[in-house]
Amino acid sequence: MGRHVPTTQKDVPRMAKIAALSGFPEWLPAERLVEQHVLDVFREVAELHGFSGIETRAVEPLEQLLRKGEIDKEVYVLRRLHAEEGDEDAGADRSRTLGLHFDLTVPLARYVLEHQNDLSFPFRRYQIQKVWRGERPQDGRFREFYQADLDVIGQNSLPGHIEAEVAMVMAEILDRLPLPSFTIHANNRRLSEGFFRSLGFEDHTAVLRSLDKLPKIGADAVRELLINEAGASAEQAEACLAYAAIRTSDTSFAQQVRDLGGSGEMLEQGITELSAVLERVEASVPGVVVADLSIARGLDYYTGTVFETFVAGHESLGSICSGGRYDELAADNRHTYPGVGLSIGLSRLVSRLLSAGMAAPTRTVPTCVLVSVADEAHRGQSDAAARQLRSRGISCEVAPSAAKFGKQIRYADRRGIPFIWFPGADGTAGEVKDIRSGDQVPADATTWQPPAEDLRPRVLAAETQDAAEAQD
Amino acid sequence: MGRHVPTTQKDVPRMAKIAALSGFPEWLPAERLVEQHVLDVFREVAELHGFSGIETRAVEPLEQLLRKGEIDKEVYVLRRLHAEEGDEDAGADRSRTLGLHFDLTVPLARYVLEHQNDLSFPFRRYQIQKVWRGERPQDGRFREFYQADLDVIGQNSLPGHIEAEVAMVMAEILDRLPLPSFTIHANNRRLSEGFFRSLGFEDHTAVLRSLDKLPKIGADAVRELLINEAGASAEQAEACLAYAAIRTSDTSFAQQVRDLGGSGEMLEQGITELSAVLERVEASVPGVVVADLSIARGLDYYTGTVFETFVAGHESLGSICSGGRYDELAADNRHTYPGVGLSIGLSRLVSRLLSAGMAAPTRTVPTCVLVSVADEAHRGQSDAAARQLRSRGISCEVAPSAAKFGKQIRYADRRGIPFIWFPGADGTAGEVKDIRSGDQVPADATTWQPPAEDLRPRVLAAETQDAAEAQD
Repeated sequence: MGRHVPTTQKDVPRMAKIAALSGFPEWLPAERLVEQHVLDVFREVAELHGFSGIETRAVEPLEQLLRKGEIDKEVYVLRRLHAEEGDEDAGADRSRTLGLHFDLTVPLARYVLEHQNDLSFPFRRYQIQKVWRGERPQDGRFREFYQADLDVIGQNSLPGHIEAEVAMVMAEILDRLPLPSFTIHANNRRLSEGFFRSLGFEDHTAVLRSLDKLPKIGADAVRELLINEAGASAEQAEACLAYAAIRTSDTSFAQQVRDLGGSGEMLEQGITELSAVLERVEASVPGVVVADLSIARGLDYYTGTVFETFVAGHESLGSICSGGRYDELAADNRHTYPGVGLSIGLSRLVSRLLSAGMAAPTRTVPTCVLVSVADEAHRGQSDAAARQLRSRGISCEVAPSAAKFGKQIRYADRRGIPFIWFPGADGTAGEVKDIRSGDQVPADATTWQPPAEDLRPRVLAAETQDAAEAQD
Repeated sequence: MGRHVPTTQKDVPRMAKIAALSGFPEWLPAERLVEQHVLDVFREVAELHGFSGIETRAVEPLEQLLRKGEIDKEVYVLRRLHAEEGDEDAGADRSRTLGLHFDLTVPLARYVLEHQNDLSFPFRRYQIQKVWRGERPQDGRFREFYQADLDVIGQNSLPGHIEAEVAMVMAEILDRLPLPSFTIHANNRRLSEGFFRSLGFEDHTAVLRSLDKLPKIGADAVRELLINEAGASAEQAEACLAYAAIRTSDTSFAQQVRDLGGSGEMLEQGITELSAVLERVEASVPGVVVADLSIARGLDYYTGTVFETFVAGHESLGSICSGGRYDELAADNRHTYPGVGLSIGLSRLVSRLLSAGMAAPTRTVPTCVLVSVADEAHRGQSDAAARQLRSRGISCEVAPSAAKFGKQIRYADRRGIPFIWFPGADGTAGEVKDIRSGDQVPADATTWQPPAEDLRPRVLAAETQDAAEAQD
C-alpha cells in the first residue's frame, strides 16, 4: 500500500490535455469547505439521533444492480484492463461482473442480508458515499455524486412512529444547512389509497399516475387523464383534484378529506399516521412540515408516509430530500426487512448552494494563525509557538519563507487567515496581529485564544437569496 | 436525484446469493467506528497544520492512468452498460475511456494543473478517498481501499524545510492513532547519492537496487549483487553495507557517513537536510524518528528526504506511511510543480488494527442515552426529553417500543448505550440510570451532563499487543 512510486522520473505525469469531465463535479478548496460542512451536518445530526455510520463497497454484482430493470443504461460496468481468462470480470456472466452502485439502497439491502446475524434491529444507519450513474451530463445531471441516506430497518416488523422520527431527523438536518426556507411535504400511501378506494376506484395506481403529472401539465389536463385513463367519472375526477389540492400545516387536512367523501379503515389509519408525523415534526422543528396530498410519486413503492422537500426559490432543483416507509427493503427465506428512510442528493444540493451564492466559507483554508518566521535560523522558535497553539486546537501554519513581514502578512491575507503571530525572542511570549483590524497585542502561545467564531472556517448562508434561481 | 424508487414492489431485491467479495473490505458498525476514528484523526491533524481538504473525481482518462507503465493490469476500466456509438466509453480510444484512480497522486497532479490559476501556492492539501486496484486479492491485497494523502505543492520552487514539516505532521498523525510503538525511518536521496558517488560509483541506481534487497536476502547476498551487478570492488561493497547499517536517532549518522569516506557538496547537503528532519521531528514528537540509511526504495523518484514508517510487532504490514520530496509532481509549458507528501494505506492499517485487536470502540453505537417510553401515549414526553439532551450535544435514541423497562434496558445494554432516561410526568424532570453501575438518580434534561468520556464512543488502543502479529 502507501504511495505508489512511479518507476522513473520521466513517468511523472506531464499532461498534454487537462480538461474537466462533464458530469464529474470537482470543487476548489473553498467550495469543498461548503460540501464538507453539509457532510458534517448530516453526520452530526444522524449521530445525535443514534444512527451508526457505515460504508459499503462501491461495487455490486451486476445482476444485483440490474434487478431494477429500468435503469440498465445508467450502470457503469467494471473490467480489469488485463483481465485474464476465468476472471470474474472477463466474461459476460452477469453474476460475476461488477458494476458501480448507483444508489445506496441496493447496497443497504445486500448489507443487511449479508450481515443480519451481526446487526441489532431496529438497525439505525446513515451512509454518505459517492454513487455513479452513466446519465447524459447534458441534462445537468451528475455522473458521480454524493448521496446521503439514513434508514431505520426492522426485522420482520417496524413500529409506525419511526416514520415521524425519521421526518424529525430530516427536518433537523435541513434546518442546520445554509438553506433559505424549505418545506417538507408529507403524504401517506394509506390515506391516498383509502381515499381513492372510498371514491370507488379499483385501480388507484392509475389515479396516482395521473395526479403525478399535476405540476407539469396542470389540473385541466389531469382531469382528462383521470377520465380517459383512470376511468373516472367527472365527479370522481373533481374529487381527486380537490383531494390533491389539500395542503395544510396542521391536522385539518383530515376533516377536508372526510368532507370530500373519504372514509374507511385504511383512510383513517392514514390520517392517524400523517397527523402523528405533522405533530411530532412541528414539535421538533416548527413551521417546516405540511400535509401535501398531491404527492403521488413513490406511492407505489412507499407503503406508509412519503416525504419530499422543496427549497423556496429553488423549486427547479426538485425534491432535495425524499423518503418514506417501505415494507420490504429486503427479504430472505427467514426474514423480511421493512424500513423507513430518507435520501439527500447531496452533490446537486451543494452545487446549487455554490452556484447560487447561497453559502460561503468565512475563509478558504482551515488555518487560523500564520506563525511568522523572522529568519530561517529561528524557524524552530516559530515551530514551538505553533506547537503550543495547536495543542489547544488552534490551526496554525508556519510561514513558508522568512520573507519580509509585509509579504508574510499578504500570504495570510490572501487566504483569509485572520491572525499572524510574531514569536518573541524567548519562550512562548510573542505578539499577535488581527489582520482584519490591524490590532497587534502581546500574547502568550500557551494561553492566547482566538474568538470562537474565528477558530475554524464557518460556512454561512448568504443573507439575500435574490435571483438565486437565475444563476444555476 | 434523491432516492431511487423501484418501479414496482416486486423489484425490491430478494437476493438469492449474498456473498462477501474478496478484496472489497466492508465493516460492521463497530468496526466502522475504528475506521472513522482513523479518518478523523488524519483530518484533524491535517487541518491543525493548515491543510485544505479536497476530493477529486474517482475517474481519470485511461491514458493518464497508464502513463505509469508497470501497473496497467491494476486499472479498473469503466464502460456504460448500454454505451452508444460515439460515446466516450464505447470505443477503444484510450483518451476518451475512463478508469478508476488507483492512487491519489495522479489525480493530484491533474488537479493542480487544471486548477493552477485558482490555487494559492504553496498549496497545502490533504485528501482521503477510496482508490481501486484490480490486484489479485489472494495476496491479501485490497481491490478497494482508503488512501489518505497529504502534500505541500510549490509552483516552480519549494523550500527544503517543508520536508521536516511534513514529517512532523506524519509523526503527529501516527502518534494519535491507537498504534503500539511506531518508528519513522528517514533517509535522503542526496545523502545516499552523494555517498555512493564519493565512493566512486557512477551508477548509484544499481547500488540502490541491490541495497533495496537487504531485508529479503541479507547482507551476504547483497554483497554478491553489489560486486556482480553494481560493479563494486570488495572494499566498495563493504562500505555500502556499512553505510546501509547506519541507524541513529540523533544526528550522529553524519560523522559515521564521513568516517566511511563520504564527502562532497551533495553529501553535505543531504546531511544538513536529514539532520533538520531529525531535529524538528524530535522536537515535535520525541522518540519516533530515526535516520535509517538502508532505505533505498523510492530514491529513484524522491529527490530529497524519503520516509517509511514501521509498527513494532507488525513489520509484516510493510511501511504504513511513506513519503518524501519529489521535484516534479506535474509540469506544463509554464510551470513545474515540486512537492513533499506522505501517504497512508489506511484500509490495510485499519484491517490490521481490527484483526489484531489493537483498537476497539467503547460502544457500538453513537447513542449515549436511551430515552425510555412508558407507553405510546407518552412518546411525545420522551421526544421532548431527547430534544433537550440533543440540544446540548448528547446523542439520544427514543426507545422503539413501549416495552417493559427491563426490555428497554436490555436494548440499551446490548448496544453498549451507557445511560437510560426515564422521563417524569411533567416537563424536563426525570431520572437517569447508569446501566453499568445500576445507579439511578433524579435529573433534569436541560442540565444533566454525562461524563465527558461517555459523550461519544471512543476508540481505545488495546493494552497488550501480544501475539498480534499471529492473528493477521
